[in-house]
Amino acid sequence: MDTALAELIAKQEIADLCANYAYALDRKDWAALRECFTDAPVFLHPGGRVDGIDGIVDRARGALDALDASQHLLGNIVVEVDGDTAQSVCYFQAQHLRAGALGGDTYIIAGSYTDRLVRTPQGWRISERVQDYLWRDGNRAVVAR
Amino acid sequence: MDTALAELIAKQEIADLCANYAYALDRKDWAALRECFTDAPVFLHPGGRVDGIDGIVDRARGALDALDASQHLLGNIVVEVDGDTAQSVCYFQAQHLRAGALGGDTYIIAGSYTDRLVRTPQGWRISERVQDYLWRDGNRAVVAR
Amino acid sequence: MDTALAELIAKQEIADLCANYAYALDRKDWAALRECFTDAPVFLHPGGRVDGIDGIVDRARGALDALDASQHLLGNIVVEVDGDTAQSVCYFQAQHLRAGALGGDTYIIAGSYTDRLVRTPQGWRISERVQDYLWRDGNRAVVAR
Repeated sequence: MDTALAELIAKQEIADLCANYAYALDRKDWAALRECFTDAPVFLHPGGRVDGIDGIVDRARGALDALDASQHLLGNIVVEVDGDTAQSVCYFQAQHLRAGALGGDTYIIAGSYTDRLVRTPQGWRISERVQDYLWRDGNRAVVAR
Repeated sequence: MDTALAELIAKQEIADLCANYAYALDRKDWAALRECFTDAPVFLHPGGRVDGIDGIVDRARGALDALDASQHLLGNIVVEVDGDTAQSVCYFQAQHLRAGALGGDTYIIAGSYTDRLVRTPQGWRISERVQDYLWRDGNRAVVAR
Repeated sequence: MDTALAELIAKQEIADLCANYAYALDRKDWAALRECFTDAPVFLHPGGRVDGIDGIVDRARGALDALDASQHLLGNIVVEVDGDTAQSVCYFQAQHLRAGALGGDTYIIAGSYTDRLVRTPQGWRISERVQDYLWRDGNRAVVAR
């Protein structure tokens, strides 16, 4: 296949992967969340580092299971492909909703995901995700555990 | 044409269609809104079901005509193409603005559009749109009629 | 190269350019901001007109240097390519953060960018950007100088 076409397809698949990660979180579809990552992924966030898919799923469940809803809106994705590996950056704005939380129902966390990805026989997978925060707004008690 | 290229083009056209739907709403361009749909579209939303393009335009006008502005920001679009039909899911975050509304000027409605689309001689068109809500925030009186 | 493929690539490059403009602002990377524009760009905004890249960078620094953070989230990009020129429209939702600002820490400005672009030996560049506002929310003092 034409190299330029193959690169465009890879970029499309990686954008889809990032979108599917967001859908998995917001649908609390933990099986789908596992499908977004390699076998031994690393997840770095402002509070620390998680190694392995079980830890990543546990952290997501801890953050989201008690909520009524969440929405991880994505934008600004830029992907660089290098053969069977890739890097990408995108912005997220994640709304968290819990009715009846003391002080308000909503809490937004916004920032960026900076990913390393690898092409596997099952498609592109995230091997490393770095989550950075740019701003937060609303009632932090919504996401308190 | 190469099948993989044709699929990428279809995905691009459908993403453009979803964006143009949003622009039509926010510009109150009801002629452009009609161009987004097939001749006999269905629109399903949390409050019910609308059959036909006249009903869809009437509902949009009812929601938006009285506002000073709106912005339907889209993200996370994933499209699956199957020949001359397609399915897509995207997120929206729709801000509604009406200055002087009692209790505040803004009201956000956020959720997802799940579409069925068909390729027509005039390009891709939405035959069915399912609008789901994930969260709402602000002053509901902004959109009250 | 296939014409349809070349057009898709141009659309991808222009979407990347718009994303990189946003990253440049939010990282306060003024050298990267310069790379987004032609040698003699025009920037039109609701308050006036800026001619030339020095003026564009000065305006961005004036708006952002004093902030703790910003996030220019983009969506809904539609690009039309015509040979070595192009036009695009996208939505932005820009959060501005300054801790300790009297009346609240955040101020959102949201609207659209309507661009004219040209293909140069260094890639696509913005020759004219028109910034329109759709809504604003939060504490305007965050961005007051």
